[in-house]
Parts: sequence; C-alpha cells; structure tokens
Amino acid sequence: MSSAYPTPLILDGNATAEQIREELRQLTVARVAAGRRPPHLTAVLVGNDGGSETYVAHKIKACAAVGFGSELIRLEATTTQVELMAVVESLNQNPMVDGYIVQLPLPDHLDAVAVNLAIAPEKDVDGFHPVNLGRMALGLPCYQPATPSGILELIRRNGIDLTGMHAVVLGRSAIVGSPMAQMLSRNAKPGNCTVTLCHSKTKDIQKHCLQADLLVAALGKPGFVTADMVRPGAVVIDVGTTRVADPSKRSGYALRGDVCYEEVAPRCRAITPVPGGVGPMTIASLLQNTWLAANRS
Amino acid sequence: MSSAYPTPLILDGNATAEQIREELRQLTVARVAAGRRPPHLTAVLVGNDGGSETYVAHKIKACAAVGFGSELIRLEATTTQVELMAVVESLNQNPMVDGYIVQLPLPDHLDAVAVNLAIAPEKDVDGFHPVNLGRMALGLPCYQPATPSGILELIRRNGIDLTGMHAVVLGRSAIVGSPMAQMLSRNAKPGNCTVTLCHSKTKDIQKHCLQADLLVAALGKPGFVTADMVRPGAVVIDVGTTRVADPSKRSGYALRGDVCYEEVAPRCRAITPVPGGVGPMTIASLLQNTWLAANRS
Repeated sequence: MSSAYPTPLILDGNATAEQIREELRQLTVARVAAGRRPPHLTAVLVGNDGGSETYVAHKIKACAAVGFGSELIRLEATTTQVELMAVVESLNQNPMVDGYIVQLPLPDHLDAVAVNLAIAPEKDVDGFHPVNLGRMALGLPCYQPATPSGILELIRRNGIDLTGMHAVVLGRSAIVGSPMAQMLSRNAKPGNCTVTLCHSKTKDIQKHCLQADLLVAALGKPGFVTADMVRPGAVVIDVGTTRVADPSKRSGYALRGDVCYEEVAPRCRAITPVPGGVGPMTIASLLQNTWLAANRS
Repeated sequence: MSSAYPTPLILDGNATAEQIREELRQLTVARVAAGRRPPHLTAVLVGNDGGSETYVAHKIKACAAVGFGSELIRLEATTTQVELMAVVESLNQNPMVDGYIVQLPLPDHLDAVAVNLAIAPEKDVDGFHPVNLGRMALGLPCYQPATPSGILELIRRNGIDLTGMHAVVLGRSAIVGSPMAQMLSRNAKPGNCTVTLCHSKTKDIQKHCLQADLLVAALGKPGFVTADMVRPGAVVIDVGTTRVADPSKRSGYALRGDVCYEEVAPRCRAITPVPGGVGPMTIASLLQNTWLAANRS
C-alpha cells in the first residue's frame, strides 16, 4: 500500500509528559520557595484489580516526580458503600487534600455514580463530576477529563493544528469518547474540528474512519482499526489499553491498543504508540488538574 | 430533481405540542384533584427585545393552556447585575416557584453566564445550568435543554426510529447544537445515531450534509440549507427562526428558517416547517420540565 507519509511522526507520550512534569516541577519549587506547601493528590483504591493497581502506582509515582504530596488510601474489596462515602466525605473536608480520585472500576457491589456525585467538584481532578462536565460544555473554567485533555495537549505540543480537520472519534464513553468529541468541536485552539462520533450502533464504521483527518480510537477493542480503515496522511490516536495474554512477558500480559499499529503507522502523518502514547498524557493531565486544584483559592 | 419521497411527512410541531399539552392538562387536573397546587413557572424578562417579548408571551400562554400557574417578572433594560441577581436569589428561595427562566438574550451590560450559574439547578427548567448539562452527559436524571429535547420528542411521536442513522447537526451552540449532538449519540431511544457536528469552521459542509439521514439545522442563517445539500429520503429539522423584513405581514416581518423549505421538502422523508415545527416543541419541553420540577420532591 502506498503511503503519503513514509516516516510517520510518533507522538511520544512519555517525552511530552516529561515536558509537562518538568514545568510542574519548576512551578512546585517556586511555590514551596514562596512558603506554601506542595500540591497534594490522594488516590483511593478499592480492592486489588491488577490494572487499577498499576494505574494508581503510576499516579503516585508521577506525584513524587514533580514534588507533589500524595497518599494512597487502600480499602478492602469488601468495603461497603457507607464506608466508601465516609472516606469521600472526609477527603472533601480535609484542607490538606487539594484533589483526589477514586480509581475505577469499583467492585460490582458499589455504586460508582453515587460516589462520583459525592466528590466535591472543586477536588474532582479526574473531571468526572457533572459540574465539571457541564462547565466544560459551557466553556467555563473546570477540571477537564484527563484522557481527552491529555490527547489535546499531546497534539498541540507536537505542533499539529487541528483547525478545520474532520475528526472521527470511536467510542462514546462518558469519560473519554463523548468529552473528546465535545472538546474537539468547540471554538478553541486546539479545537474547531468537524467531529463525527461513532460507536457500537454505527453502520459502516469503515466509511466514517476513511474520512478522518484525525482518528481517535477509544473502543477498548484490541486491533479494531486496520490499515484499510485509515486515510493516508491521517493523525491516529490510540486510547485503547487492553491487557492480552503474552507468555513472552514477565508479567504474563501485554498492553494492546485499538489500532493495528504495525500496519496503520506507515499510512499516518502521526500516530501514538501503545504503551507510551495516551497513557502517560492522562497522568500528566491529572497532575495539571491537581496543580489547578492547589491554586484554586 | 427526482425525489424518493414525493409526499414528505410534515412534522407538525403545533399538533404534537398540543398532544403534550393535553397530557399535562390531565396530569394537572389529577394533581389539583389530589389537593396539590398546580405547577408554577416564572419567566424573567429584562428589557423589551421584540423576539423575547413574543417567546415569553408564548410560554406564559402555554402555562395557562395546561393549567399551570405562571408569572412574568418584567425588569427595565437598565436593570443592574446586582438587581437581577437579587431577583434570581428570591426565585431560588420562593417555594411557590417550581421552575423559572431568565429569557435570553440579556442586555449587553448584564453577565448572562453569572445569572445562569446563580439559578438553582433544581429550578433550571431551561436546562442550561452546568449541573443539568453535566448530568445529561452522564445519562442521569436532569432537565434537558428544551429545544433538543423537543426535537427528539417530535421525532419520536411521529414514529421515526433514529437507531443507526447518521445525524448531521449544523451549529455548535451550548443550548441547541452541542446538546443535540450529545443526545442523538447516546445509547437510548431516541438516540443511537452516528453524529457529525458541523459549524462555521467546517470545510465542505455540503459533503457532510449529503451524508445525513437526519439533518438538524441550527445555525441561525436563513435559507442556508438548499436542495443540493440534502440527500433524498432524509429527515430534516429546521431550528432556525430568524426575523426577516416582510412588508406583506402586519407585523412587518416573517420568520425564516435555516432551510429553503420549498425546494428541500420534496426531497425529504420528513421535514419541520417554520413556523410551527421546532418552536412549539421547545415550549412543550419547557412545560414538561416544569412538570418534573413541581414533582421533584
């Protein structure tokens, strides 16, 4: 297959996240030098889901890397709703906690929606609370959902101008696909894309994908996007991080994206790898939101 | 030009709104028979904008038609922000007011965003407050923005199943185009459309329009959508209501939609007229939200 861009730009999330961490490190040093305490992020982890353990560990490590304070609150998988809500309430009240997250997914017996609604919007650094989503919809200052925010930052810092592009977003989740579509379409920079949002009920998804100048895959279906779905010269963002068995790895699994990287990359103007693309940017956005939270008053 | 649907279905907003009013009338009669007061809507009108006068008058009249209580609070065009905020606060506190609206646009010296944020979300029957927009994004119970909600109701009550359709929305306003795109894409009935949101920065808007099974025009540009932009068999919804000078009318003006109705209608499976399409449905949705507000506790 011919390619308009024989050497695609690899959108290196690790490198761009490190830029952001360096900026936050300097800001934190200046803040502390001015006699204020460093920003503080708390993470709540219920149970022992393997993926969640990894994500939370990365978040705590990222805090340390920029000089933020952090704390991991571990709760048993058998924690009741009442117990979890009490933890949320204490975090809302605690003036030493600037922002906090309750790592998803929660065990099945817990009501994640009720937990989300109970988080104080001004400490909701994941940007999942309705007040933050609604403020985003109106273009008001808010904590933006970390993954779409990180994707826009990755695109912007790699010098790609989205204005006027046709963006096709695959997946309509409340925390990635839907806010991604909104953020891409707003009158802002980055933004101003014509946006098509596709999902499981979309007919002829290939037809839509082939029109995309920017394709964001957030389905959680490993290898869904193949070369024949990508227009030469497209920018491709892979949000998928599904664990698939891989005996060759020490952990026993590998992370697999929604995009068949090997066959798609040669067609692209730019593409994110998995891992090392969107994942680190999501954590960098969480740090940025925590910085905002620490400076909100 | 040939047409797949020689007799398009006219989506009669007046008739469908009257169905809804009849339902609300019966509910109100039953509510009052049970010893409760009727639902109550208050409208705040600042200044004397001609269009706003008309809209507010229609809303008050619609309340009367279903047996709701209503009140129009008229404020001078010179009202200050502090005075308007005091009115908002008193409406928030008044237990006799189930829901209220502050008619837009406000005079230039007033801050409409600050007013919107000050309205108690549980009385925000326009559905413009961030809490309601955010709850909608998460699929939680909320007051849905009246215009997109009315459009979905018009489509549903006319027996059109949207599932799997490609919807193209023209215009990204926070109160019509953007929430319309969200509501069409969600996993619900009506819903489950693949949605493309177009706006002033969209390139080749005709190409996008021609792919639409459902075309929603909400640009406020009279006559923007011409026959060569509409695919035969499409459902076309015209949200535009621009006043254009018309000496043949007693009022001196006519309402003109975003769609060239005469040339587009013969191509369509279904189409809304202007006036008498989306406008009456918007008011019917406002009544439905007021009913919900009266029954929220």
